[in-house]
Amino acid sequence: MSNAEQPQDMTRRQFLSTVGKVGGSLAVFSLMGNLGLLSPETMKAQDYTPPGKNDLALSNRNGKKIIILGAGIAGLTAAYELGKAGYQCTVLEAKPFAGGRNWSIRKGTTNQEIGGARQYSQFGSDLYFNAGPMRIPQFHSTLEYCREFNIPIEPFNNVNDSGYYYNENVGALSGQKITKRAAKADVRGYVSEMLAKAVNQSALDLPITPEEKEKLVEYLRREGDLNADLFYRGSSRGGYKEEPGSRMDAGVVRDPFDLKAILQSGFGNYFSNEYGYDQQMMMFHPVGGMDMIVKGFEKHLGNRVKLNAPVTEIRQSADGVRVRFTQNKKEQEITGDYCICTIPLSVLRNIPSDFSSSMKSAIQNARYASAGKIGLQFKRRFWEEDELLFGGNSLTNMDITQIYYPPTDYFGKKGILLGYYATGANADKLGNMSYIERERHALNQGAKIHPQYKTEFENSFSIDWKKIKYQEGAWVSYNAEERAGMYKTLCQPDNRIYLAGDHISHIVAWQAGAIDSARAVVKDIHQRVMKA
Amino acid sequence: MSNAEQPQDMTRRQFLSTVGKVGGSLAVFSLMGNLGLLSPETMKAQDYTPPGKNDLALSNRNGKKIIILGAGIAGLTAAYELGKAGYQCTVLEAKPFAGGRNWSIRKGTTNQEIGGARQYSQFGSDLYFNAGPMRIPQFHSTLEYCREFNIPIEPFNNVNDSGYYYNENVGALSGQKITKRAAKADVRGYVSEMLAKAVNQSALDLPITPEEKEKLVEYLRREGDLNADLFYRGSSRGGYKEEPGSRMDAGVVRDPFDLKAILQSGFGNYFSNEYGYDQQMMMFHPVGGMDMIVKGFEKHLGNRVKLNAPVTEIRQSADGVRVRFTQNKKEQEITGDYCICTIPLSVLRNIPSDFSSSMKSAIQNARYASAGKIGLQFKRRFWEEDELLFGGNSLTNMDITQIYYPPTDYFGKKGILLGYYATGANADKLGNMSYIERERHALNQGAKIHPQYKTEFENSFSIDWKKIKYQEGAWVSYNAEERAGMYKTLCQPDNRIYLAGDHISHIVAWQAGAIDSARAVVKDIHQRVMKA
Repeated sequence: MSNAEQPQDMTRRQFLSTVGKVGGSLAVFSLMGNLGLLSPETMKAQDYTPPGKNDLALSNRNGKKIIILGAGIAGLTAAYELGKAGYQCTVLEAKPFAGGRNWSIRKGTTNQEIGGARQYSQFGSDLYFNAGPMRIPQFHSTLEYCREFNIPIEPFNNVNDSGYYYNENVGALSGQKITKRAAKADVRGYVSEMLAKAVNQSALDLPITPEEKEKLVEYLRREGDLNADLFYRGSSRGGYKEEPGSRMDAGVVRDPFDLKAILQSGFGNYFSNEYGYDQQMMMFHPVGGMDMIVKGFEKHLGNRVKLNAPVTEIRQSADGVRVRFTQNKKEQEITGDYCICTIPLSVLRNIPSDFSSSMKSAIQNARYASAGKIGLQFKRRFWEEDELLFGGNSLTNMDITQIYYPPTDYFGKKGILLGYYATGANADKLGNMSYIERERHALNQGAKIHPQYKTEFENSFSIDWKKIKYQEGAWVSYNAEERAGMYKTLCQPDNRIYLAGDHISHIVAWQAGAIDSARAVVKDIHQRVMKA
Repeated sequence: MSNAEQPQDMTRRQFLSTVGKVGGSLAVFSLMGNLGLLSPETMKAQDYTPPGKNDLALSNRNGKKIIILGAGIAGLTAAYELGKAGYQCTVLEAKPFAGGRNWSIRKGTTNQEIGGARQYSQFGSDLYFNAGPMRIPQFHSTLEYCREFNIPIEPFNNVNDSGYYYNENVGALSGQKITKRAAKADVRGYVSEMLAKAVNQSALDLPITPEEKEKLVEYLRREGDLNADLFYRGSSRGGYKEEPGSRMDAGVVRDPFDLKAILQSGFGNYFSNEYGYDQQMMMFHPVGGMDMIVKGFEKHLGNRVKLNAPVTEIRQSADGVRVRFTQNKKEQEITGDYCICTIPLSVLRNIPSDFSSSMKSAIQNARYASAGKIGLQFKRRFWEEDELLFGGNSLTNMDITQIYYPPTDYFGKKGILLGYYATGANADKLGNMSYIERERHALNQGAKIHPQYKTEFENSFSIDWKKIKYQEGAWVSYNAEERAGMYKTLCQPDNRIYLAGDHISHIVAWQAGAIDSARAVVKDIHQRVMKA
């Protein structure tokens, strides 16, 4: 008997969830206490129980063949996990390299966008930027593979108060580069002042006791760095006009911006970018490039991954799956027991197949988002040398949207920063430009924040994900209606074919979505095989 | 003529400050624009112009001898900078090692606290904790030496929303470990809701236009993640009861805490710890231990640093300085032209000297703060493995105050976390215990947050800075009156003797204070020598 029906196949999370349904949350809490898991925060997405290593052998089921379409993170995960359990996997990848959107642009990288010219990276050795995913939250399953493959990780500086806000056409602060620390200190200061006074003057009808009011005011005093009279008069948190130093150099705190100016600037609306569950510090990335994860998978998969092998047809019968692809200019065919298809829906919709009509319709109608990035190589790391800014980003309402400073190789001689990471209409605007026009636009707008651009720039490489062959989009977009409708269809196996990828998850645009969805398919196929 | 009087001796900051005094801030801004320095944020503390390398030789002033007392960061900086300019420096250090409070505790470290037993570190190879400074803001001069000495740096995870708050005796949330993200989401949610409604209902008399009010409400809506009716009903920012995952696993957001419970918990008062100018992300530390900086200085200073050489007497005349010290059990004497004394005032007050009476009184009366740390080595990194917590800290109102998770060597097998970093009365309480009692107390209290303490603990090493020989205190404390009085005296040279150290700065308890004050003395001595 396989272990697939054994309790150990339940993840810790599922187990606790079951206990919860039976005994309520108190039962869960008490049980967790007994298990040494004192808080719900220890229940994380990583609870995946892989197929038993000997299940196939012990049950005489060896030789099961799985065809995996696409060597992105979902395809690689599926092949790796199924391979560990003894399945014979073949991964067909259309591109000349594995990884999908996990793609680190380095010296010698080439790319030809759909309808565009060929682009050659002139980046220096050991320099790179991640064209796709570039950061990993601590709780994403992605880190499990970093650990498993012994890939060293380092923090991704997703928050840096030395970064800047720069907005145009927003009133008095238009066209000024303002440190994030200055904007945060002032907005938090003024807002805390307003509420503290309102609470103190009982202008608000709050359902709290006088003692609780006192605690609230004390919180606001700290939150805003208010003075004894609950006024915000500036704060060292926002930085100094004259830095404190030795002897009599006590430092002079900067003057706060005017309340109206800071309100009009819109800078406050940027703060919550840092609050998102998947954007909060700490975040991480592999030392040496996100594609270290791809290399980690590849090391284990060897020649089971066939590159330059675009799929041309997907068919299935009651007995198995048949996939046609081209390799070395030859049309080839492969058959298997099951198929895991991780091809982006934007590409899959153009491949002849015999999916059910509801599946075909869902694949056809899925909408993909736009996103684009440009890596700009500079002669020297002026952001570190001149501005003492080590990683992090600057945000702007210009087309370039954001600049990311490299969160690695500090003190290095040269550096590549992300000159833009644009989405939506901004990405389309930039993506519709030629490579050289994108470069010029990124330099012109970025130079408003960093005049050093003008003298230190060396070369660039840009990506528009809608124009990347075999991707044709950045990530899928579902609205609530689509989630309730066509998305459900995509999540169901179509006979012997299972879809996987971040588009089959609620962690869209993250590698963890690809990993978790691949693992779900692995589990399903294994259960089906063991039950058959 | 030396370059000491040339304009290039002025730092960029001083230069701009002078322009400001003459022409006002607009002149500064315009000048900065011309210099390519678009914002005041580019004026940083690092603007130090070292003595000209050939000043002494060109002016026939070679052979000037400087006696430096103490091989902490101030003493090492002074010796290094003066050495580059051709001065003959001797550094006398009482301890068997250089660095002062920059002290990384490693395998084999031993220490005997004043009035205590000898302690031997049993830490594993390659593990360490920094007993003194452990983090560096981006804008501190400390990073300049990391760069100069080719010391790789890595981020110090000073903010991690996966860390916990744990308070006792604070109402409904007493004794519960709450993630920082949960507390932040709820406090920001409720507070934003209160103010948004007050603004919307015109309950506040604000000097802003209706359009600005709209912007304020929009900011609050984002800040608190409020719903369309401006209510806070929980937010994914605070985490999930059930994590989002693949397919239909959309995730279930945790329920917010009750407003009263979160107010009473006091958790909100912790948030502003992260807002301080010198606590904001990003922060850094040298790879391999803070003492890499000490080793960097030592490499350049060689045998100019005399270890195990406690000073026993400090005398000066019109011609020079004479310092007595013991080394190899022998009383020895050294003479020099000038002396830089970086010995902590808590120690200096007990060394016979002929300082002026006002200087003696200032040295005598300086008050020193308490601080203590314990490093706890664990068999495995349960905070990473079980709780997906990579660096950062947890805060509590228990004696241990805070736990810091190692911001390095992620995925390592074993790990040392800071079991407490206590100051003030908490530090005194812990410091007055024996090493084994401190360990027990740290384990008992810490186990309330991490029950894994009970099974995974291996060994510890603790420090009470008031009991560390030749330190006798964590850092100096000046109130406003003392800054206006005795501190001024300490900043003035006493004839041929100059004090340096973070206690002669407004960056107390930071290495940058030591560095900046040492550089100020270097500059003064050089000017005096060149004028003589």
